[in-house]
Amino acid sequence: MLKDRPIQQFLDELASKAPTPGGGGAAAIMGAMGASLVAMVCNLTLGKKAYEAVEDDIKAALQASEALRARLTDMIRADAEAFDLVMGAYGLPKESDEEKAARSAAIQDALKVATDVPLACAKACAEVIELSRAVAEKGNKNVVSDAGVAVLAGYAALKSAALNVYVNTNAIRDEHFVHERISELNAILTGMEVAMEEIYQEVKSRL
Amino acid sequence: MLKDRPIQQFLDELASKAPTPGGGGAAAIMGAMGASLVAMVCNLTLGKKAYEAVEDDIKAALQASEALRARLTDMIRADAEAFDLVMGAYGLPKESDEEKAARSAAIQDALKVATDVPLACAKACAEVIELSRAVAEKGNKNVVSDAGVAVLAGYAALKSAALNVYVNTNAIRDEHFVHERISELNAILTGMEVAMEEIYQEVKSRL
Repeated sequence: MLKDRPIQQFLDELASKAPTPGGGGAAAIMGAMGASLVAMVCNLTLGKKAYEAVEDDIKAALQASEALRARLTDMIRADAEAFDLVMGAYGLPKESDEEKAARSAAIQDALKVATDVPLACAKACAEVIELSRAVAEKGNKNVVSDAGVAVLAGYAALKSAALNVYVNTNAIRDEHFVHERISELNAILTGMEVAMEEIYQEVKSRL
Repeated sequence: MLKDRPIQQFLDELASKAPTPGGGGAAAIMGAMGASLVAMVCNLTLGKKAYEAVEDDIKAALQASEALRARLTDMIRADAEAFDLVMGAYGLPKESDEEKAARSAAIQDALKVATDVPLACAKACAEVIELSRAVAEKGNKNVVSDAGVAVLAGYAALKSAALNVYVNTNAIRDEHFVHERISELNAILTGMEVAMEEIYQEVKSRL
């Protein structure tokens, strides 16, 4: 499993000409690092007397960030599997007309999977960004810079996932599917740049 | 060594209340992922007939990105070591006046190391961003989205490293040192947001 790879080996494979892991896996890891850093700030806030008043909010943020981390970690694998599915479909025989039609249908089906994985990643990353706002505002001041890294990682992952949605929908012929997914992506992206800037400034003001 | 940790274990430690790894290590990994993705685009461009004209530029980008990846990977460890140095200094005895003075001097020295590590990280990340421009413009169109993830990862790492410079300089009393390092950081940051936006749009236009 990719998540069991040592970091150095993952980076070696990422840099190589091997088709996976690629940008989709890197996006999932950035999102998972963002969720991890939200959890870290929560863990270093809970139980501290100065933060008793926000304990319930921080507990909720911890639970939510750990659930997101699990989802995003799973997407490292899901992204590579979806990519392999697309490559496998492109590799199908294309001699006869039947083969051509079957291959084309398989490619289209695989591209839909390869769209839905980064779309789910983008959705999870938007949630990481919102959680990083909660810990930037209410978490332990001594580790507020980690909340800042969380929002930056979440935002980079969100925009990276968006690129992977675009690149796959570009090759999909089912216009209804494309319209629906791009609309969903746009709804996720709306307001996120402003949110990221606000949270970064909040972090800087509490450093 | 942190770079030999499996990704899942690294994320577990990042999320925990353990002081390291933290945001600094996450920033170094994001930068290293950016450099890796630049290298990946280069590796999937070199030797392709359609890209013969840019072969020299891509070879240069590959060499530079692999050197940056090595530097950034090393910073995962350097960041944790610098943090431990600061924590160790804060843990020194402070009973007598001599102890207090020695502890204070050790803290100040450690904070300078803990400033220079993320400053070097920021510098390397700015170079990753510029390299991702080269591969976004000239690299294999089929993997241009990976150049987009590279610039996003490099930029998130740059801004994360900046936060770690701010947080450490805030506690440093040597005003000359602080002024010098903040000036250097500002020079690195200048124009980087615009560069990131330009490169992201270039990527989107070539998808």
